Amino acid sequence: MLIRAFIPAHITAFFVPKFNENPLLTGSLGAGINLTKGTNVFVSIEGGLERHIHIAFNGEPVKREEAVISYSVAEEVIPQEFKGEVEIWQYFDFPNGYGFGNSAGGALGTALALGYYFKNKTFLQAAQIAHKHEVLNKGGLGDVIAQIHGGIEIRIKAGAPGIGVVDNIFSEEYKVLAIPLGRLSTKEVLDSDIIKAIEKEGQKALEKLLKNPTPENLMHLARDFAENTGLLQGELLEIAMEIDKLIKLPSSMIMLGKSLFALLRKEELPKVQEKLRDLSIDNYHICGIYNERPKVGRWIG
Amino acid sequence: MLIRAFIPAHITAFFVPKFNENPLLTGSLGAGINLTKGTNVFVSIEGGLERHIHIAFNGEPVKREEAVISYSVAEEVIPQEFKGEVEIWQYFDFPNGYGFGNSAGGALGTALALGYYFKNKTFLQAAQIAHKHEVLNKGGLGDVIAQIHGGIEIRIKAGAPGIGVVDNIFSEEYKVLAIPLGRLSTKEVLDSDIIKAIEKEGQKALEKLLKNPTPENLMHLARDFAENTGLLQGELLEIAMEIDKLIKLPSSMIMLGKSLFALLRKEELPKVQEKLRDLSIDNYHICGIYNERPKVGRWIG
Repeated sequence: MLIRAFIPAHITAFFVPKFNENPLLTGSLGAGINLTKGTNVFVSIEGGLERHIHIAFNGEPVKREEAVISYSVAEEVIPQEFKGEVEIWQYFDFPNGYGFGNSAGGALGTALALGYYFKNKTFLQAAQIAHKHEVLNKGGLGDVIAQIHGGIEIRIKAGAPGIGVVDNIFSEEYKVLAIPLGRLSTKEVLDSDIIKAIEKEGQKALEKLLKNPTPENLMHLARDFAENTGLLQGELLEIAMEIDKLIKLPSSMIMLGKSLFALLRKEELPKVQEKLRDLSIDNYHICGIYNERPKVGRWIG
Repeated sequence: MLIRAFIPAHITAFFVPKFNENPLLTGSLGAGINLTKGTNVFVSIEGGLERHIHIAFNGEPVKREEAVISYSVAEEVIPQEFKGEVEIWQYFDFPNGYGFGNSAGGALGTALALGYYFKNKTFLQAAQIAHKHEVLNKGGLGDVIAQIHGGIEIRIKAGAPGIGVVDNIFSEEYKVLAIPLGRLSTKEVLDSDIIKAIEKEGQKALEKLLKNPTPENLMHLARDFAENTGLLQGELLEIAMEIDKLIKLPSSMIMLGKSLFALLRKEELPKVQEKLRDLSIDNYHICGIYNERPKVGRWIG
């Protein structure tokens, strides 16, 4: 039997990390956007004499140590007494490590697809397992809970699905421009001095967004956060300023990757695409805002 | 400008009411199903010199006292300083008072459509206003929070959206048969002696469902609840037993209406339809399970 799960990519505009000894109480406050592109997870399950779990990223088998989060999720969701072959194929629309929530997408897609098959967990139980291993392995703090809500989201209480609280902003039709330009180590940033600025600026942005909960305000606050924390600088800032000349709302930086994003009206698209050609940036994505829940179901290919 | 919101009909399988002085802490535990049919709310807004709010049910204008919940929601979401004409057109796929969550659908659809237009509330703030007026006017306790989650849902913590917690069961493709047969006053049932049996049986069903969270188990528990509380009896029980002869899972009663529901496989449908013809029951619905979030957006008719 083949199961497919789709989890939207999730980009963070600003955040406040919240750590706790209990990984289910660990998470983040902040805001971000779920995209119509993301992670597709296909799970194939067959009975057998021994228990084997195989994981592949974009068609290439990966070792356990390269996919600790998804292996840990699979081990926990698959019933202990199950014997057989479980193949987990994860396909990512965005590159790993650039701030698109791939590890959470793979973990959550794995948890939901296996929960769907084995019927031994509820949706929140499966999602909590994905959140827990994300946190324990420093994949991310708020991606899983954001992804299960979709849309433009505001994390107003930190924690795992069922514990944290996620709100949404009403939004008219915008396109999202996403430009992955390089990797950024979440761990390095969180372990550095910037963390204090992140906490201060993130809290301020959250309060201002809740007072005026619009996509337009979100983009202004995201940019202030990115510049005031010193994260958006150098070449990345220069490209952002080039894009800003052509669109109404400020662009900003994806937390945490060397990546940019912007909300565009359809009519703003051609000029921006021309500019990106001039700047020799070929690798960019135009997506919609994903306003739905993750999808999981039997796959009839 | 014309805004449209779609809110799924929500049928309750079993429940435990939870009352509190604070309407945001009032709600219910239990389980139910969101349907692909439900309530469509169209909101038309034009500027003007005076503030007027008009509400219509299925194309017929209704007086304030016949639509207290939706009027109260509109008054609270529309900014105090707004002057102009607001028309709220609510269309219901199911009859009112039969247990399909119409009042919550109208209230939530109104709140979301107005929140979308005025951009002065977040999604949860708008949904909380709908929940509050549902509770204050005894429209329902758990419909609003169930409707924002979709799917087959389990209410594991009572309260308004953002406070209560709703989980979901993974479910393969089932069709839902819904037969509205008569009205039942929620208020009369909640004020009667049956309430003690509802609390005891509801709590028991919830615990059993969480141990084995499948749609199949849900239907067995729903039927036990309906019979053990004495709510499912007489003619309604006789019809349920006729349907049971033809399908794998037990049918049950919709809480609270004189209505029945069942989960069917596609291949079970023709026999059931033939039986309903024999029983002279013409007024029934075949729907899907609605696994998405409520929809709200600009309507281009």
